[in-house]
Amino acid sequence: MPANLVPGNAVIGQSGGPTAVINQSLAGVVEGLRFGLHAAGHVKKILGMRHGVRGLTRGDFLDMTDMHQDILDRLAMTPSASLGSTRDKPDADYCRRVLDACRTHDIRYFFYIGGNDSSDTCRIVREMAVADNFDLRCFHVPKTVDNDLKENDHTPGFPSAARFVAMACMADFMDNISLPGIKINVIMGRHAGFLTAASALARRYDRNLNPHVVAESTDGPQLIYLPEVPFDIDRFLADADRVYSKKGRCHIAVSEGIQDKDGVSIGAKLIKGAQTDDHGNVQLSGSGALGDQLADLLKTRLTPAGGKPPRVRADTFGYIQRCWPDASVIDRIEARRSGRHAAMLAMQGHLDASVAIKRPGSGSVLWMGNDNGIPYVSEYARVELADIAAKTRHMPEEFIEGHNNVSRRFIEYCLPLVGDLPGFERL
Amino acid sequence: MPANLVPGNAVIGQSGGPTAVINQSLAGVVEGLRFGLHAAGHVKKILGMRHGVRGLTRGDFLDMTDMHQDILDRLAMTPSASLGSTRDKPDADYCRRVLDACRTHDIRYFFYIGGNDSSDTCRIVREMAVADNFDLRCFHVPKTVDNDLKENDHTPGFPSAARFVAMACMADFMDNISLPGIKINVIMGRHAGFLTAASALARRYDRNLNPHVVAESTDGPQLIYLPEVPFDIDRFLADADRVYSKKGRCHIAVSEGIQDKDGVSIGAKLIKGAQTDDHGNVQLSGSGALGDQLADLLKTRLTPAGGKPPRVRADTFGYIQRCWPDASVIDRIEARRSGRHAAMLAMQGHLDASVAIKRPGSGSVLWMGNDNGIPYVSEYARVELADIAAKTRHMPEEFIEGHNNVSRRFIEYCLPLVGDLPGFERL
Repeated sequence: MPANLVPGNAVIGQSGGPTAVINQSLAGVVEGLRFGLHAAGHVKKILGMRHGVRGLTRGDFLDMTDMHQDILDRLAMTPSASLGSTRDKPDADYCRRVLDACRTHDIRYFFYIGGNDSSDTCRIVREMAVADNFDLRCFHVPKTVDNDLKENDHTPGFPSAARFVAMACMADFMDNISLPGIKINVIMGRHAGFLTAASALARRYDRNLNPHVVAESTDGPQLIYLPEVPFDIDRFLADADRVYSKKGRCHIAVSEGIQDKDGVSIGAKLIKGAQTDDHGNVQLSGSGALGDQLADLLKTRLTPAGGKPPRVRADTFGYIQRCWPDASVIDRIEARRSGRHAAMLAMQGHLDASVAIKRPGSGSVLWMGNDNGIPYVSEYARVELADIAAKTRHMPEEFIEGHNNVSRRFIEYCLPLVGDLPGFERL
Repeated sequence: MPANLVPGNAVIGQSGGPTAVINQSLAGVVEGLRFGLHAAGHVKKILGMRHGVRGLTRGDFLDMTDMHQDILDRLAMTPSASLGSTRDKPDADYCRRVLDACRTHDIRYFFYIGGNDSSDTCRIVREMAVADNFDLRCFHVPKTVDNDLKENDHTPGFPSAARFVAMACMADFMDNISLPGIKINVIMGRHAGFLTAASALARRYDRNLNPHVVAESTDGPQLIYLPEVPFDIDRFLADADRVYSKKGRCHIAVSEGIQDKDGVSIGAKLIKGAQTDDHGNVQLSGSGALGDQLADLLKTRLTPAGGKPPRVRADTFGYIQRCWPDASVIDRIEARRSGRHAAMLAMQGHLDASVAIKRPGSGSVLWMGNDNGIPYVSEYARVELADIAAKTRHMPEEFIEGHNNVSRRFIEYCLPLVGDLPGFERL
């Protein structure tokens, strides 16, 4: 046992948008502590923060030390952040209050499940604790449906949301064949296009890894627009016109975060009187405005002279994509293990860390989870908080094809994560 | 065997919005014909219309006579209308062309899977055939996620869409607890509120039939607005204010078809420059406009003097609610049987009919399908086309409670249809 372990309480919080598996990570940290630091007598109480650091600074805790394992297991299968989440993004002053609260409640182990902002909170609080000579150890557990954390092959929450997007686009594409027209689906991801890219799994061709099938897929979505590729409205209209003219229908996946070549959000450009949040961002989720504006554009600009406008519809998948109960099995397992891994790093005497999911190279022979024939296994690594904190990972170039598609490499990356998808028959 | 059977071909079509199980009904008709009229030599070819009556009038058919049963079974498990659907609502002239096409292709058995408009098409075509002394037998197979067909306990397609709505609201309610605010979900159903009402199944209390649990549920959605109850904007704002003030959050289900006391669509009132379809209806599905307008209203009117507006978000479930791949098992079975029953009625010598699903009274002792403890079994009856055609069924009064809720009787009606729902744990 490392000599440097310090006795005290542990606290766990959840931050940012909830996911289908963030409670798996919560259960993982609690289990990991029980089997490690708590069993060894270093950690006395295992406290849950209500609504993240907001609850911590108010002393609003749920004591999870003796929570029955059955409840923990059911909690893990429940989507959403059961402790309550927060959108608070602590500045130095706020982090000072976090540190004070930890001192007040004799907290020596701080676990925060969230995205890059949560990682940054861990980093700042840890630095302040070091400066204060207060032994508070800070651990970040990754979570984001956006999949935008550096150092990670992918992040817990993404595979389940990607599964929802793939299933929704599979079904909606069949709907679009039944009643043809132009259909736009707006998908989450303000800065990173991973979730929008997962719409490509809806294509039968892209689900089929047999290299002998023809490369030209007739399945939708035919057009995929990511925030990483500058969005040009005229090019978008020309793309849709080309597909619609050829097929009499067109299925389009658009990221809520699409932006023009100067980095200006298309949502902000199109939505008149758009509301902005505290960070100056236009509200894109929980609103159908971007999809509606793009649909109006298509209706107006693709109407033939003297003719009828095409049938154009837009759906915005909204919040249900991040908490849909049918989570990816792999995501459930990995989110749980990420939480346990953070507790293990603490037990090993680390003073701070983030956990990253890695995918070993082709040397690995282990298979896991699904039937699509792509070898898949994940590993858990300790990474520095500073390497994750407040940084954003984008779709790498090798995952992008042209200005309106994803590459084969992305399919091979994403397909093993989402679990088995239903098989559809098409006449 | 009835003496009056006439030799010829059979044709089957799908009409209106696709569902998760309309292909089950297609497979059911084909199977029923194969085992009956086709096996007996009365029906030569079993033809599928491409895109409903539109394809029929153009002679655009898919010959399904010898389609492999494996394909038929996989087709049945595929959401959407695999033959293609149509929004055409034939008038007398169009029906005349339908009849002519039947004569041209030696069609004597006409099957149409759809809602009340499709039933009306069957009725008109049948009447014209009788007047012409052409022996064409017309059968309607029920389908609509709106559940608005007369004479039916419920209609194929509704249970699966209700299942989607219940699951989405279950997960989204947990999301709303995680990150509190006011959340609006806009649900399909222009005239009938059944699908919006299914949001009530998201409430833990309403899923639990144990009479000993407290009657006052803290689960969401707390407010449910149906098209059957006149919608008053001020009352809506007061409702939301009351729940939000008390809980710090509010979960709301709204039908896209809500209307004021004069029958004017709230969507039409709120959405400036709203587009209308061929029938003069404002486009509500495939647009987030109604939800966005209601959200704006709440933000503006519930902002305290000098304070910040509440966090308000709106999602519109859109098209994915009707074709989501995880269909209700009971819905799959019933849609298949409805199709087979129509073929059986033809075999029995009926000249026209619609099929209706009935639920026997409390005398029935059979149980089926799920674990919620409500005895459930369905039966299939022949009903007159004229009793369904162009008529709309609304939520009966006994299913409605006050101006913003559904009754216990509705829960007992709907719960057995949707199949098992996931169990969530809540701290």
